[in-house]
Amino acid sequence: MKIVVVTSNPNKAGEIADYFGALVEIMHVSMEIPEYRHPDVGEIAYKKAEYAYAALRCPLMVDDTAFSIESLNGFPGPYAGYVLSTLGNNGILKLLDGVKNRNAFFETAIAFASAEGKIRVFRGRIDGIIVSPRGDSGFGYDPIFEVEGRTLAELDRPEKNRISHRAQALSLLKAWILSGNKAVPGQNR
Amino acid sequence: MKIVVVTSNPNKAGEIADYFGALVEIMHVSMEIPEYRHPDVGEIAYKKAEYAYAALRCPLMVDDTAFSIESLNGFPGPYAGYVLSTLGNNGILKLLDGVKNRNAFFETAIAFASAEGKIRVFRGRIDGIIVSPRGDSGFGYDPIFEVEGRTLAELDRPEKNRISHRAQALSLLKAWILSGNKAVPGQNR
Repeated sequence: MKIVVVTSNPNKAGEIADYFGALVEIMHVSMEIPEYRHPDVGEIAYKKAEYAYAALRCPLMVDDTAFSIESLNGFPGPYAGYVLSTLGNNGILKLLDGVKNRNAFFETAIAFASAEGKIRVFRGRIDGIIVSPRGDSGFGYDPIFEVEGRTLAELDRPEKNRISHRAQALSLLKAWILSGNKAVPGQNR
Repeated sequence: MKIVVVTSNPNKAGEIADYFGALVEIMHVSMEIPEYRHPDVGEIAYKKAEYAYAALRCPLMVDDTAFSIESLNGFPGPYAGYVLSTLGNNGILKLLDGVKNRNAFFETAIAFASAEGKIRVFRGRIDGIIVSPRGDSGFGYDPIFEVEGRTLAELDRPEKNRISHRAQALSLLKAWILSGNKAVPGQNR
């Protein structure tokens, strides 16, 4: 089986290829997809997959990720990338200055389009708290996002890939492929 | 001439009808349009007009507005509405705490689709500085956005509508309609 990973981020495609190993052949296609605004990452991933399938007409996957901070009413939400590039981690820490509730979570939705264009969405989520930056690995919000005593930037890649939101979604997709495309509970759009 | 204003905000449609008076008949259609992510409001308004025209097939206008703060790398940009509903004006002020450069601007693009679906974009922009909240009129960021010594929330509606980003874009659209659809300098997509 061949699956095209549609993303502008080659590292992400590499991570996914690693994840699937010999099970599926992963090809990377970089493609400009309109970025739909919607509060739900699942809806956004679904729309992206529709768009990419209309152009490519082959089995493919796309993802969308949100980062939500409870005391900021879910901000930055689906705009995690934009906020990182404008405010950065320092901006997030400034917004939380003096705020007690530090709860936050990452959520990823991976939309998979079959050869026939049928689209399924698989989700993953990881909960943690916002802390002062620690650690050198990972990227983005990893240094300020702590899970069970360590920030994501303090984990090495295999550790992070065992618990991350993206790994969870990929694991559900993998189980679904291995099961011969039978339904996996709770994985509706 | 009849023009449909496509917006989920009835106040906006009313403002536009006021603006055009007897020149054109304004009808309000509330329609859910996918919110495209893009750094340029002109591109977003253009895409919205394309989408709305495909559904309605009549002369129409849609707008998109951004609010950009210089020292925050343009944040919140096209996500002004989302940021207002999550961080609010207090969040913006917190981010600017201790920051000297308070420059900011509003930018609106109005995309007009002709009866044949030809789309033109008209823009308006107003520059100001971010200050502690003052004034009771207007909405959104108006109380913290100061232009020539007064915040937008300290202006009454006719005053605001004489200088605002939206009024500027509407004035260019009006001039273009009155000129018999001749080009207005500098108003390309």
